[in-house]
Amino acid sequence: MGTSGRLSQSLLRFAQKLAGDVPVRLAGDGAAEEPERPAIVVHDPRVLRALLLNPEVGFGDGYSDGQIDVEGDLVSFLENAYRQPARFSSLVISRWLDWIQANTLRGSRRNIHHHYDLSSDFYRLWLDRQMVYTCAYFPKADATLEDAQTAKMDLVCRKVWLRPEETVVEAGCGWGALALHMARHYGVRVKAFNISHEQIMFARERAKREGLSSRVEFIEDDCRNISGRFDAFVSVGMLEHLGSKNYLEFGRVIHRTIGDCGRGLLHFIGRNYPRAFSVWIRKRIFPGAYAPSLQEAMNVLEPQNFSVLHVENLRAHYAKTLEHWLSRFEQSYQAVVETFGPRFARMWRLYLAGSIAAFRVGGLQLFQVVFAGNKCTSRPLTWSNLYTGAEEPVQEKKWIHAIS
Amino acid sequence: MGTSGRLSQSLLRFAQKLAGDVPVRLAGDGAAEEPERPAIVVHDPRVLRALLLNPEVGFGDGYSDGQIDVEGDLVSFLENAYRQPARFSSLVISRWLDWIQANTLRGSRRNIHHHYDLSSDFYRLWLDRQMVYTCAYFPKADATLEDAQTAKMDLVCRKVWLRPEETVVEAGCGWGALALHMARHYGVRVKAFNISHEQIMFARERAKREGLSSRVEFIEDDCRNISGRFDAFVSVGMLEHLGSKNYLEFGRVIHRTIGDCGRGLLHFIGRNYPRAFSVWIRKRIFPGAYAPSLQEAMNVLEPQNFSVLHVENLRAHYAKTLEHWLSRFEQSYQAVVETFGPRFARMWRLYLAGSIAAFRVGGLQLFQVVFAGNKCTSRPLTWSNLYTGAEEPVQEKKWIHAIS
Repeated sequence: MGTSGRLSQSLLRFAQKLAGDVPVRLAGDGAAEEPERPAIVVHDPRVLRALLLNPEVGFGDGYSDGQIDVEGDLVSFLENAYRQPARFSSLVISRWLDWIQANTLRGSRRNIHHHYDLSSDFYRLWLDRQMVYTCAYFPKADATLEDAQTAKMDLVCRKVWLRPEETVVEAGCGWGALALHMARHYGVRVKAFNISHEQIMFARERAKREGLSSRVEFIEDDCRNISGRFDAFVSVGMLEHLGSKNYLEFGRVIHRTIGDCGRGLLHFIGRNYPRAFSVWIRKRIFPGAYAPSLQEAMNVLEPQNFSVLHVENLRAHYAKTLEHWLSRFEQSYQAVVETFGPRFARMWRLYLAGSIAAFRVGGLQLFQVVFAGNKCTSRPLTWSNLYTGAEEPVQEKKWIHAIS
Repeated sequence: MGTSGRLSQSLLRFAQKLAGDVPVRLAGDGAAEEPERPAIVVHDPRVLRALLLNPEVGFGDGYSDGQIDVEGDLVSFLENAYRQPARFSSLVISRWLDWIQANTLRGSRRNIHHHYDLSSDFYRLWLDRQMVYTCAYFPKADATLEDAQTAKMDLVCRKVWLRPEETVVEAGCGWGALALHMARHYGVRVKAFNISHEQIMFARERAKREGLSSRVEFIEDDCRNISGRFDAFVSVGMLEHLGSKNYLEFGRVIHRTIGDCGRGLLHFIGRNYPRAFSVWIRKRIFPGAYAPSLQEAMNVLEPQNFSVLHVENLRAHYAKTLEHWLSRFEQSYQAVVETFGPRFARMWRLYLAGSIAAFRVGGLQLFQVVFAGNKCTSRPLTWSNLYTGAEEPVQEKKWIHAIS
């Protein structure tokens, strides 16, 4: 064994320490001892150094480049990894990303462009028909993805009790599905903001095709530039892209928009407690992303004297949504490889699989927060209207204790 | 007009400034100009000095002593007062109360004794039959108080999806209604903590009478001394008495009790944003009380890696509950005067009326927060099980936009 071989072996031993109970082996060093158990296979020993320098980025990039493979189910492997206590800190690189990816008006454009302007055709391969790229809502566990996305849009509309002819502003509207759904099924007028050019073009085209252009206006601008008064404010999957430093300003924008009489909903990926977003995800997938704890998110609402009316954690629903996405993605895997190359395809597979694992394990949460201005008086007495009767029945064994 | 008369007139003018658009007049200075409009009548000019020194305490004590009266509806008058921007600050007296009423283990006993050991017979005059002294839940606006308190107890049990033979700990159990309800209707075993001797005696007696002593144990101790493992943790109307300095420790107690696999519910009076509790209420009614904003309340849960699953704001329900209480209190007013004297009776009338006003205006909120440890996997997919079909139907005008 030469020096480089010995070095590889030491690095391998160290990598094994980091990986915990998951075996790490060099490709060609014989077959797995327990073939059913997930294992990390290193195809190119040069990746070991990057892995040790920064395990998260080293693993993410090594996997994307095909230098590392995972034998067995990728999601289960990642779930297991996320359950281990963190063995390293990426504080320096994390702070550096905070700085270079800061969500100024210009920074946000750059960050959003990186992800959402990839091409609608790519997302069409694995999203639902309406191209909703946020957590769905499964009234029953076996609902289809299309039905679950429609159920989510209805849930959002019911949570802010929309009534015909009211006005709604949407901050971060994706490909426009929710804005169009609100206008069509709840009779409201919508102004929907997005800084992704590709998405706005798509949404405008769809509004025109469906005869809703007079009721839904798609505006290519940062939601911080919203002006005018509205009855309700809705933002689904946008807070994650804002960065916690901008929450106070964002709260002011909302208050300027709906005043003390309006109401609103924020739907966002969150955390149980404050911690930095995955460094690899920020480098390769979502520049500038940050998932706040509820305590942090309150910095949007409390300084404006907004009342929190309702919060629901849809973490299990996001795991399910992502399972659908990954399954469709795998079905279109060859098409992705042909258009974007194998590195991109593996990178996105890892991102989707890792997100499933994080929502299953609880590293990520999904919060829907309903709030209202202090003078908003129209809200219903109970939230029973959120449910249609189509939900999975919960087995409740009501139990009467025999009184002696 | 003598010197003291001139002084009274200047003080009156100043009091008028503080009172905003509500007329203030000295008794005997002729009838009200607009008899329907609420007005402050000062029977004893000596109270004006106290009123100017500290309007909140001066008004509360002056009203209790009969030196001040309110013409017209007391609740509407207070609602109007609460809508005015605050014209004074009681910072010094507020800090002083923080200090002398601190919720150490001993301080809490003293504070709780002041309010809850008054005598069960007093509370029986105006609470529901089961003596539930927390916000009720009205599935329909016209539900009776007895039904609304039972509905609240069922709502709490459903929110933490209790199953037969599970174990529950309750922190701050009042006269024991919820603990007994959980045991009888959901088949669980309960340990219920309270530091009010009078309430614990009452609850034990009721458990014995109803044959539930083997399933519900009432313990006269501070909930911070809880030991043992339980499936669920429930606390209704206790966090307000803990003081925000003790939240971290309280969170540790909960985590020690239910670990990473259990779940729990906190029901408490809260705020839209952090502010001190009414100085008069703390001096005369609830020593040591503090109503946190959601952001502050997160200090209980986030450091323990608990996931917030569900939050509901029941502010409108507390206004309704208090309306029932005040109405029953007024019916028993003579009995209260005879037993406790007129000062006590007026003080409690003002406290109940002021609480209605605060919940109507939004100075106070009522939060129910459901949370779970990060390894809790038993939770239902949706919250549709919270609703029984007995709720008020919400008029939803679903609206299909004609596609052109």
